[in-house]
Amino acid sequence: MISRVLSAELPEHIGERVTIAGWLHRRRVLKSVTFLVIRDRSGLAQVVLPAGAAPPGEETVLQVEGLVVASEQAPGGAELTGPVLTQLSGPAEPPPFDLYRPALTATLPTILDHAPTTLRHPQLRAGFEVAAASAAGFRAALDGAGFTEIFTPKIVESATEGGANVFAVDYFGRPAYLAQSPQFYKQAMVGVFERVFEVGPVFRAEPHDTARHLAEYASLDAELGFISDHFDVMPVCRDAVAGMVECVRERAGRAMHELAAALPEVPAEIPHVHFTEAMALISAATGDDLAGEDDLAPAHERWLCEWAAREHGSELLFVTGYPLTAKPFYTAPDPARPGYSSGFDLLFRGSEIVTGGQRLHRYEDYLKALAARGLDPAPFAGYLEVFRHGMPPHGGFAIGLERWTARLTGAANVRQVTLFPRDLHRITP
Amino acid sequence: MISRVLSAELPEHIGERVTIAGWLHRRRVLKSVTFLVIRDRSGLAQVVLPAGAAPPGEETVLQVEGLVVASEQAPGGAELTGPVLTQLSGPAEPPPFDLYRPALTATLPTILDHAPTTLRHPQLRAGFEVAAASAAGFRAALDGAGFTEIFTPKIVESATEGGANVFAVDYFGRPAYLAQSPQFYKQAMVGVFERVFEVGPVFRAEPHDTARHLAEYASLDAELGFISDHFDVMPVCRDAVAGMVECVRERAGRAMHELAAALPEVPAEIPHVHFTEAMALISAATGDDLAGEDDLAPAHERWLCEWAAREHGSELLFVTGYPLTAKPFYTAPDPARPGYSSGFDLLFRGSEIVTGGQRLHRYEDYLKALAARGLDPAPFAGYLEVFRHGMPPHGGFAIGLERWTARLTGAANVRQVTLFPRDLHRITP
Repeated sequence: MISRVLSAELPEHIGERVTIAGWLHRRRVLKSVTFLVIRDRSGLAQVVLPAGAAPPGEETVLQVEGLVVASEQAPGGAELTGPVLTQLSGPAEPPPFDLYRPALTATLPTILDHAPTTLRHPQLRAGFEVAAASAAGFRAALDGAGFTEIFTPKIVESATEGGANVFAVDYFGRPAYLAQSPQFYKQAMVGVFERVFEVGPVFRAEPHDTARHLAEYASLDAELGFISDHFDVMPVCRDAVAGMVECVRERAGRAMHELAAALPEVPAEIPHVHFTEAMALISAATGDDLAGEDDLAPAHERWLCEWAAREHGSELLFVTGYPLTAKPFYTAPDPARPGYSSGFDLLFRGSEIVTGGQRLHRYEDYLKALAARGLDPAPFAGYLEVFRHGMPPHGGFAIGLERWTARLTGAANVRQVTLFPRDLHRITP
Repeated sequence: MISRVLSAELPEHIGERVTIAGWLHRRRVLKSVTFLVIRDRSGLAQVVLPAGAAPPGEETVLQVEGLVVASEQAPGGAELTGPVLTQLSGPAEPPPFDLYRPALTATLPTILDHAPTTLRHPQLRAGFEVAAASAAGFRAALDGAGFTEIFTPKIVESATEGGANVFAVDYFGRPAYLAQSPQFYKQAMVGVFERVFEVGPVFRAEPHDTARHLAEYASLDAELGFISDHFDVMPVCRDAVAGMVECVRERAGRAMHELAAALPEVPAEIPHVHFTEAMALISAATGDDLAGEDDLAPAHERWLCEWAAREHGSELLFVTGYPLTAKPFYTAPDPARPGYSSGFDLLFRGSEIVTGGQRLHRYEDYLKALAARGLDPAPFAGYLEVFRHGMPPHGGFAIGLERWTARLTGAANVRQVTLFPRDLHRITP
């Protein structure tokens, strides 16, 4: 291994000769001296060169041996003097925009077209540190609650969430599809492990070109058995979100600071409001006629988040009991409110970030639900088989990692926090 | 939540009335008494019914309230008497084979055709507990070594690992493919995070119908920068494997016991042998003429594993320096041995379970490597761009989760440790 100290460790080595290694983040050639800023995974380090030195281009990878000297002007309070430079990469060509500028100066298409390089910008990189910490926090919360991780297939025989918006795959000459969710599999696995989670890609052939839709995204899925109703799923969802926030706090504090983003307080019990009550509140406040609506418009999600902040001091709000017509066929009805579901959404900072609820668990109920929607049960036969062999009452939820990360970091477009986004127009890089 | 104690907790409640819940694993109707065995995620519990009771069919989900009584004959030393049964599922139809028999009596096709139900068998379930613990151990080892988790796209514009064996996707009317590996992306992300890992599906349109090939599997990928050569990657791989073993020990001990499987000792340094030396050893021992061979045959991998056990007391063996012709174009050559690579495989219990090595990191070297193989650089343009902008020496490795789990648990066929396998002939359930 190339023997090195990380830039963040320099202050511990004042007075010693050490070696650092990283990318040449910035060159500042002054009359009397040349400063190099070296970027590594821990941060930035300043190197002082004598005047007249001819450093290589920005983004060249360098190993720098030098004497660590205290310096108030340098990042971290220490810099490297008397340096000996060794080039570890080929000489770098100028990147598509100046990565050393504190704020992003490129447009989103430029950033995305050149993602392998532009992601090196500390502000872009920060978003992914938050995403990684969120995924780790999700897993830790569920690991700690007796959940087993599962890996379910992404190539499937038929659409999971309905017939539209699926990508077709040529599977050894046979038709197949990319899974829109692990829904059927995670339900079936409740029959094996009782409590399961999966972190994996899902695929939606979304015809929408919006700031919050992707054709492929990371879904954080959980499902658990032996619930009484969806009010038993919501605390698990709350704990998962709290675990995500906690792990971001622990692991991605620097990234959140870089993005000037703040973590939410996750209440011990996230406030909840029934769909009908939410509609009545919105209608009373805005004068909008919402009769017959079976889903929340984006503006109404924003209004409800403001209301939750005002009324409950919470940036998170569960909306429960959406009409069954707005929910997939596997959703359990609310036995006390005909036409309404035992489902929920979790709203956060103006947008839905989680969908969940209780599922049907009896075979006959599935046949009835499919018939009520005019759906042919044949393509679901393999899925439905498990309900003939004893399934407990169960439910679960799914969190879109990119959408969550965008809300958490304040990114206006979900693509800013997706390493290599896929959408209606984009399949590269 | 349905208020319950788990079956494993019964011995702590002797003398109390408690509620358990789970699947009716087995009914034993005797003359004077009927025994029910209830299965939950923690294990089995025995319930004693008066003679003449008519219990529902096996796999029905039950809630059972009763008095916990010490009993030497019962699993865990306690059973439930005076029970009140509540049915939580619909009445269960008989599963495709008796799940209560200790050993699997069904054929692999029957098991796989009915996987959502057959996976409930404790022996099948055990394999996935081992897989889940392995994945968790992999992540923990890399998390602890400064690696960042990444989520890279599975729908890609061109083949990663060569033109063959890719699945075609209809991407909004444009041609696209399923990623054969996250190779290009994880390399590019070394430029951002220095050290990255990913746990995700990969897709191979494998025309082979063998006991160790799948069309979709979970790949545990890692990549790191600032290495001197592949001998800096191998210790990271060793630590990842050691972390996996440790996590299986901690979390899946019951599963390993169920499978009568033993964990390997992972040496502090896994022994390694160069490809040429390995071939000479095999040739000398077996008399096989191996001149001109550029890869190990399965029989030779088995021979080497026996040799490593004998010579080094290790169930794990690195084979280094495979000929470049056997390795993909991004493989770095060994500067000291023309024609040989800076790559390695890790063999375990007779089979290769990891492939890794140092990669090229200079733009010109990629152009030369592609030209030497007669490959058009055009489809790789987006991938190669990152090497124009400064990449450090780097390398990494990939572990196939299912193949690892099969070796670890002694499963003869990788499909036995894949929840819902995909192969040449199978896309359901």
